[in-house]
Amino acid sequence: MGELHETRRGRLTGLLTANDIDAMLVTRLVNVRYLTGLASSNAALLVRTDGPAVLATDARYAGTATAECPDVELVVERHTAKVLTTLAADEGVRRLGFEAHDVTVEKHTELVALERGIRLPPVSRPVEGLRKVKDEAELALLREACAITDRAFERVLPMVRPGVTERQIAIALERQMVDFGAEAPAFDSIVASGPNGAVPHHRPGDREIETGDLVTMDFGARYGGYHADMTRTVAVGRVADWQRDVYELVKRAQQAAVDAARPGAETKAVDAVARDLIAAAGHGGDFPHGLGHGVGLEIHEAPLMGYDKTGKLMDRVPVTAEPGVYLAGRGGVRIEDTLVVRADGPELLTKTTKELLVL
Amino acid sequence: MGELHETRRGRLTGLLTANDIDAMLVTRLVNVRYLTGLASSNAALLVRTDGPAVLATDARYAGTATAECPDVELVVERHTAKVLTTLAADEGVRRLGFEAHDVTVEKHTELVALERGIRLPPVSRPVEGLRKVKDEAELALLREACAITDRAFERVLPMVRPGVTERQIAIALERQMVDFGAEAPAFDSIVASGPNGAVPHHRPGDREIETGDLVTMDFGARYGGYHADMTRTVAVGRVADWQRDVYELVKRAQQAAVDAARPGAETKAVDAVARDLIAAAGHGGDFPHGLGHGVGLEIHEAPLMGYDKTGKLMDRVPVTAEPGVYLAGRGGVRIEDTLVVRADGPELLTKTTKELLVL
Repeated sequence: MGELHETRRGRLTGLLTANDIDAMLVTRLVNVRYLTGLASSNAALLVRTDGPAVLATDARYAGTATAECPDVELVVERHTAKVLTTLAADEGVRRLGFEAHDVTVEKHTELVALERGIRLPPVSRPVEGLRKVKDEAELALLREACAITDRAFERVLPMVRPGVTERQIAIALERQMVDFGAEAPAFDSIVASGPNGAVPHHRPGDREIETGDLVTMDFGARYGGYHADMTRTVAVGRVADWQRDVYELVKRAQQAAVDAARPGAETKAVDAVARDLIAAAGHGGDFPHGLGHGVGLEIHEAPLMGYDKTGKLMDRVPVTAEPGVYLAGRGGVRIEDTLVVRADGPELLTKTTKELLVL
Repeated sequence: MGELHETRRGRLTGLLTANDIDAMLVTRLVNVRYLTGLASSNAALLVRTDGPAVLATDARYAGTATAECPDVELVVERHTAKVLTTLAADEGVRRLGFEAHDVTVEKHTELVALERGIRLPPVSRPVEGLRKVKDEAELALLREACAITDRAFERVLPMVRPGVTERQIAIALERQMVDFGAEAPAFDSIVASGPNGAVPHHRPGDREIETGDLVTMDFGARYGGYHADMTRTVAVGRVADWQRDVYELVKRAQQAAVDAARPGAETKAVDAVARDLIAAAGHGGDFPHGLGHGVGLEIHEAPLMGYDKTGKLMDRVPVTAEPGVYLAGRGGVRIEDTLVVRADGPELLTKTTKELLVL
């Protein structure tokens, strides 16, 4: 794994050199993990253009860092950003880039107060930029996270029936994922039944499933730090015409978006493929969120795919495609896959059927 | 609940007036929740000294906010901090305090770029300060969180036996807590057996419990947003003399710290009560973390109790007391309760026995 992280850091130093930055202070924990492999709640990384990277973490993680990150220098110290800034200054760094979207005003004031004659230019999300395109090691972890998600869904499906509560289904999904090897759920599972399906981020509660409900389940597994995200909507007992119409519309929009997710495609254009279909069917106002988002070490990461998002998809970028239609007081449908953008067509990582299941 | 949150906001405006601040922009989500009741992943609150508070959140949480926070004005907008800063400026606020430990340099730059002639003085953790002393509604939630924790421990104890893995025990504890009504585990559970017990923050793995092990379990339930935290160390099969000696030492140190946690006590003095006992027994170097921390809407919050922490305990402040002794390659012992500091003596919220259990 050391080589993998060294490659990633090499790509970062390439960016720094191009921007006349001597070194970069990485403080966002998920970015430190990406560049070193260390998962922790307190760490920072100094990436230098002219020497090995230096990882700072506190005593709790020192043993893990020594074992898992042999390719970086280690400093054991609780005030991780301060110690690395001091070190950089002492070693002659003049311009130390920092993550302005992570460092708080308070922390920045502390670093400036060190008064070591070092300049701190903000650098705009360079590591998040690198993280968009996944390497094969990452894709393998995402594949397994999605496979676990599929398996859990299959196992829980038989319990989606009248009298069972949303919360019971959510708990069952999460336990099945852990039993199939997930570290944890990738996020708080959504189970929204009947009228609750009209709330995109409904929290599963004590409502019991009833015959005639649509039930939307949005959940996923975390595996090796990587996050799966899948949504399926099923019908219980019977299906009204309006429910089938909305389902087929969302299914068609979702498939069209998946097909449009090609390298070079504008993210907002992919969003528009689904959004225009839904609008043309008279539901333009009933799809109040973006089409999807990147997934990886975070459940929501770059690239975001919404009607107001700029940027292009690239080969080996995993994203979700999750259009929905929500009808207040009646219910809703959302269908979501995690897929990888590929030159030869999208690679679906979540493989559960998207045919309307009537349980 | 509305009245409760209004009381809390009233205490904040009292602090602001004393500091010549017209209004405060609260962006830290846990603080927004404390002051309004809204749990969300995107919200900000404008607290004014001369008018009702204004809550900003995005469309996903608008319904919940309308239902649960009737006592504040609501603005539905994704860019919550920006919209509230603009609003404050338009309504004549000259000095708008902000949370410098939460607002990033990037976000701060955006707010300054609004150029509305408003000044943004940083204010040092005023809401965290208020949150230290809990009201009765909070203590009731904490009591229940701790009761669930106790019950889960009792239920899982019979499975702590040779051949069972750390991970299996951790999962069982977490499932029992959810079955007893917890929203979720309060944090990633620690189960550390045998030599792994020497690592304070060990992640439960596939090691199987063996006869002669000490097993440390550090876990807790989250209930109504409030976090319980308890650690117990048990012996499996038999107890070596050194294990019993270390256990009795930690138990004595923990009890002494609990007894010293009185209103007015310096946090570092309470830490020292436990630390000095452990050092006197020759284990001064084997207790490498602070005595404990406040608990509430966060699992770690003010006040922190360590050898280098300043501050005084007060009536109705819940804290943990969790000394430990860790012997590399051999194992360790940690014993932890969640308790409430009270004028008439500490109120233990976790009630599981601290006698050494040999299973």
